[in-house]
Amino acid sequence: MPENLTDLIAELALANRILAHEGVLDAFGHVSVRDPRNPHRYAISRSIAPESVTAADILVLDLDSQTVDPKDDGKLLYRERFIHGEIYKARPDVNAVVHSHSPTVVPFTVTRAKLRPLLHNAGFLGLGVPLFEIRKSVGDGTDLMILTPSLGKDLAKQLGPDAAVILMRGHGDSVVGPSLPNAVFRAYYTEINARQQLAAITIGGPINFMTRAEAVTSNDAMLRASARPWALWRKTALKGR
Amino acid sequence: MPENLTDLIAELALANRILAHEGVLDAFGHVSVRDPRNPHRYAISRSIAPESVTAADILVLDLDSQTVDPKDDGKLLYRERFIHGEIYKARPDVNAVVHSHSPTVVPFTVTRAKLRPLLHNAGFLGLGVPLFEIRKSVGDGTDLMILTPSLGKDLAKQLGPDAAVILMRGHGDSVVGPSLPNAVFRAYYTEINARQQLAAITIGGPINFMTRAEAVTSNDAMLRASARPWALWRKTALKGR
Amino acid sequence: MPENLTDLIAELALANRILAHEGVLDAFGHVSVRDPRNPHRYAISRSIAPESVTAADILVLDLDSQTVDPKDDGKLLYRERFIHGEIYKARPDVNAVVHSHSPTVVPFTVTRAKLRPLLHNAGFLGLGVPLFEIRKSVGDGTDLMILTPSLGKDLAKQLGPDAAVILMRGHGDSVVGPSLPNAVFRAYYTEINARQQLAAITIGGPINFMTRAEAVTSNDAMLRASARPWALWRKTALKGR
Amino acid sequence: MPENLTDLIAELALANRILAHEGVLDAFGHVSVRDPRNPHRYAISRSIAPESVTAADILVLDLDSQTVDPKDDGKLLYRERFIHGEIYKARPDVNAVVHSHSPTVVPFTVTRAKLRPLLHNAGFLGLGVPLFEIRKSVGDGTDLMILTPSLGKDLAKQLGPDAAVILMRGHGDSVVGPSLPNAVFRAYYTEINARQQLAAITIGGPINFMTRAEAVTSNDAMLRASARPWALWRKTALKGR
Repeated sequence: MPENLTDLIAELALANRILAHEGVLDAFGHVSVRDPRNPHRYAISRSIAPESVTAADILVLDLDSQTVDPKDDGKLLYRERFIHGEIYKARPDVNAVVHSHSPTVVPFTVTRAKLRPLLHNAGFLGLGVPLFEIRKSVGDGTDLMILTPSLGKDLAKQLGPDAAVILMRGHGDSVVGPSLPNAVFRAYYTEINARQQLAAITIGGPINFMTRAEAVTSNDAMLRASARPWALWRKTALKGR
Repeated sequence: MPENLTDLIAELALANRILAHEGVLDAFGHVSVRDPRNPHRYAISRSIAPESVTAADILVLDLDSQTVDPKDDGKLLYRERFIHGEIYKARPDVNAVVHSHSPTVVPFTVTRAKLRPLLHNAGFLGLGVPLFEIRKSVGDGTDLMILTPSLGKDLAKQLGPDAAVILMRGHGDSVVGPSLPNAVFRAYYTEINARQQLAAITIGGPINFMTRAEAVTSNDAMLRASARPWALWRKTALKGR
Repeated sequence: MPENLTDLIAELALANRILAHEGVLDAFGHVSVRDPRNPHRYAISRSIAPESVTAADILVLDLDSQTVDPKDDGKLLYRERFIHGEIYKARPDVNAVVHSHSPTVVPFTVTRAKLRPLLHNAGFLGLGVPLFEIRKSVGDGTDLMILTPSLGKDLAKQLGPDAAVILMRGHGDSVVGPSLPNAVFRAYYTEINARQQLAAITIGGPINFMTRAEAVTSNDAMLRASARPWALWRKTALKGR
Repeated sequence: MPENLTDLIAELALANRILAHEGVLDAFGHVSVRDPRNPHRYAISRSIAPESVTAADILVLDLDSQTVDPKDDGKLLYRERFIHGEIYKARPDVNAVVHSHSPTVVPFTVTRAKLRPLLHNAGFLGLGVPLFEIRKSVGDGTDLMILTPSLGKDLAKQLGPDAAVILMRGHGDSVVGPSLPNAVFRAYYTEINARQQLAAITIGGPINFMTRAEAVTSNDAMLRASARPWALWRKTALKGR
């Protein structure tokens, strides 16, 4: 990944379109990346559908999720951007965040079965998959969205120091990674693992999930392997789909 | 949305293509919008497949679902247009109606499980999802279609004053909204929620549906948020798919 | 439909591409139409994948499924063409036949649950859906294919005088209709009904299937309504997909 | 298939793109073909996503999976290429190998239900579908990948002398055939049969699988029939999709 913010922003625009194309993001959801030169800032699109994002739509926020450049005053920001800012505060190891309504993940947020790694690409799920239940933070009657810094902090706290993915009840998930390609990789394979776990449940248990040791080894391998799908998806996204 | 009927008709043509593209409408189904200047009239395509509809195919009907312009005499009208006219009569708050054979909704019309909101975008399902059983209106032996004003009135009565969606047994659903983008949004997320509820049933266990209070809050939020997917879908539809 | 065989052959080529595009036909399967001027002959493609069929690939066979034009000598014919010839012999009401490995229909050929109409477009399933078990005709050890006139006759006999669809165990189905658009319509909605019945089984029974009277009325209505999807699909197929 | 290695390499590049297009391969997986002139060598792409492979990316390895041409020194090779080399050593009848994360096959690698042939095109599954459990070879804690010649040998041994497919727990499968079109055919229909078996399990009840005799006869028929889908897929892949 480029160390230069301008070039990184071009990659971030592609990441939005990649995840929309792969069916992880629909008209909602967002992707961000931490500024490699200033860890107290991150880049994210203004509030539009991910599939439409180009580099020109991306702006820089501080970790309180406020704009830092006066030229961005008055631009419409994602209402749930606190997901990103608060996770960057809590997790210095995280350099990219994806929030999505990943379609096969949502059912796992409202049922008791745990989302667990069964496909080796999804070993990162073995680092834990906490569930954020907004009713436990602020009670009944919300629209389930992370609309305040305080809710963002609660979410980041539930994510904890190790997990790569946090489920959000009735809403979707947030996925983090040390790099943009890896966060995109993890968001994609969280959805794939959910589909395969759903199929395995249909076939009938018990399911031979990966062990903790396998998950850790696989996660390490996939940190290196994230570059291959990224190269493919990037090329497809650049072709305009 | 435009207040000008001509411009609104262009949006209505797009709405048809959007819902066909998103897999909510197949070769059947129809979308209508109330005339913003004359609430006793509505616009709807002549009887062709939604994916083919252009502004030139759209005509204006009165609330008895009869043409009002002599130039439209003899045009083939949707046989089930009474769904639209009778709902507009019964529900002054409704300005757009979608009738579809939404593929994952149909199975919920022939089983006992209730379609209920689990995804926050589908909070509107918490306003109630009545089921129209045509056998209760006119007995056995129909083709399940709403072919008369009287059946349209029965459907509108079952929809009631609050619901956004009514299921039609063995047939599909009708979805209403205060605006065209919102009715399209609701038709889309009714299908998505049905898919996710089907997956949640497969996973098993009690499903943590949205509460009534969450549904109401989310519905309010989504009335405002409908503009974002509409902007995306509209752009895609204008590209010719 | 044209009464002229040349024009009808152009429609038959489109029917092949339509059903491939809609996912009913994969690289195998075939579609035929009876010659409107000579009921003892039918048109069908030479042995190639349906998605590739153009009018130039189509030839005319007699009801023993042999070529009638010397220019067709030596062309590779579908090995299972006897499905078509023998059904045309047995069912004078049938003017078009589709044989496919319709993907969601195959599972219903190897399980005990009956494929039954739940979607009003698929009312024709209420005319009966017999199952052809090749082991009952010629015992164990076949490749499940209809490779002889005798097997074709057995299949046509099992289809009986009324049914629109016959399931073929571990293989797919054969669908018949009074016209090419109607046979294509029925092949498509057999697949759709199978998907929706699968979903209804997942949701959990009992399933409120259409009654016999509803099926008959709906089938009549859909004989007339087949023209609408045909017009749409034809346009899409002519665009080259 | 061409006997000339240069022409065969062009077909191998197409095979990669075909299986990516059909959803059998994602950004990972690989396809190889044995050199028709030198059975101690095989051709396979350098380490890139299958969808991107062109003839220029393909190189020749010996059966120890090492490059043989000095111009290939330093090129990045698939880390799991030992799957291919060791199977070619153990199975002289095999001339092509596909390794994939076939999405509906993976769930059958972590559950107890056996993948068995129910669709006649998939009769080759009746030759046996062994499961490779890497924990039995080298214990817990791997990333599930075949990263050494020794693991490749274990996999080839488990595959045995007859099977066309071996499942790899939490990972995918490896599929072999006497020719490239046949191996591609089998990889495709392994996925299709898995989808249909999943649906049959959902429908419920005893599944009427193919008998051993039917499987053998069908496999023979499909060895001859593999040419038809290959011709179609090849044409589609050449069109740049």
